[in-house]
Amino acid sequence: MEKLYVIKIGGNIIDDEQKLSSFLQSFASIQGKKILIHGGGKLATKLAATLGVEQQMVEGRRITDAETLKIVTMVYAGYINKNIVAQLQANNCNAIGLCGADGNVIKAHKRPLKNGIDYGFVGDVDAVNTTVLQSLIEQNIAVVVAPITHNANGQLLNTNADTIAQETAKALSSLYCVELIYSFEKSGVLMNAEDDTSVISSINPVSYTQLREKNIIFAGMIPKLDNAFAALQSGVSKVIIGKAEELHSLINGSAGTSIVHE
Amino acid sequence: MEKLYVIKIGGNIIDDEQKLSSFLQSFASIQGKKILIHGGGKLATKLAATLGVEQQMVEGRRITDAETLKIVTMVYAGYINKNIVAQLQANNCNAIGLCGADGNVIKAHKRPLKNGIDYGFVGDVDAVNTTVLQSLIEQNIAVVVAPITHNANGQLLNTNADTIAQETAKALSSLYCVELIYSFEKSGVLMNAEDDTSVISSINPVSYTQLREKNIIFAGMIPKLDNAFAALQSGVSKVIIGKAEELHSLINGSAGTSIVHE
Repeated sequence: MEKLYVIKIGGNIIDDEQKLSSFLQSFASIQGKKILIHGGGKLATKLAATLGVEQQMVEGRRITDAETLKIVTMVYAGYINKNIVAQLQANNCNAIGLCGADGNVIKAHKRPLKNGIDYGFVGDVDAVNTTVLQSLIEQNIAVVVAPITHNANGQLLNTNADTIAQETAKALSSLYCVELIYSFEKSGVLMNAEDDTSVISSINPVSYTQLREKNIIFAGMIPKLDNAFAALQSGVSKVIIGKAEELHSLINGSAGTSIVHE
Repeated sequence: MEKLYVIKIGGNIIDDEQKLSSFLQSFASIQGKKILIHGGGKLATKLAATLGVEQQMVEGRRITDAETLKIVTMVYAGYINKNIVAQLQANNCNAIGLCGADGNVIKAHKRPLKNGIDYGFVGDVDAVNTTVLQSLIEQNIAVVVAPITHNANGQLLNTNADTIAQETAKALSSLYCVELIYSFEKSGVLMNAEDDTSVISSINPVSYTQLREKNIIFAGMIPKLDNAFAALQSGVSKVIIGKAEELHSLINGSAGTSIVHE
């Protein structure tokens, strides 16, 4: 099967014009088939503040009321998505920006109440439809996905970009040899959280168990790695975690942490 | 050649939730291949007012400064475009929303100074690239185009939706038998501007000349019709002007004004 890169960039890159521009240059120059999933960054929060829309957060997650949904749809699927596409075009990378409603690419349902908390218009992914994605990928078009999905009944939903990256990578694994890359602000999974040079270059299920037992991997890194191993179980060939500025090194294996079967 | 409908809806439909929803139901039920071009409506103006971004208008046209471009990108390519797509999906019409940067579909250049007026980030269309459009159309996907283009150097540009409809219809005329439908608030071209039932059902170049000489067609309708005849000259098979609420009647010829070769 042909290789496909599914690459997620986090909000800290989106928020930094220079870093984003340099990342997009690197992304554009990747040879081969690729998808970019972008998060939201702080622009939506800023716009909400300017508009006087109060942002409720519960356990680090935004409660998406109707006004907030409108804002994230505008910012994620409009401003950020279209500026990324325009910059990729300027770097000679043909790209198309989509949200989950486009081509029915990502169907989701409104998250049910959890511990009495209504997260509002937040979507949990049901299915990634690969038909349109494959048709675009086969035309060597880079698909740029904004973290907005729909429920197929006309309702848009705000959805976690990490989840979208993972579900998209899993769904496309039946068609491509998928490498899923989470690019963020750190150099990878670290032996010592304080030392950005202490990158663990490779983690397999056995070493993962050991690293958890020794409390080297803990807190927020655990769900990330659990998701990475779940993706491998579902057919993704490799998951790489590392710094957005080192995209090409992440891909050629000389930087970041690779999460592998064994 | 197979028939393709290129349908433009104006801002007055976008601004009215009920009318838009009913229009989208009609659009979804059109058999065959179709593209929807939407205008912007008043939402961008409202958002600009709320954000304290002053809107400069010159001769009925918005001057698009950097802040206004950001707003129209968010509103047109984000909020409006994605809500239309989600509603079409809910009506069992597979749709994909694009702006001109996506797939390099519509390349434009920043409008040069006219009579000393700098319109800002307003784009005049250079070329419509049919490759991606055709590939989506052939998958029976309704393409929904927001009136934002790009200059291929990373700059998004605000572009008149009527122009986008016309240029898209012209470009696709080499591949399809294109009917271009401008749906707006009136029933068509009227014999008597005060009487919405006085629709002229058909206009050809000869009758157009007569209608102008008699001052039945005047003012704002002249550039619309000039553009319609120019579209016919460039290969569009028919141009229809009429009421959005009568979409199916416009298509089957029982309402609106058809602009025809002879």
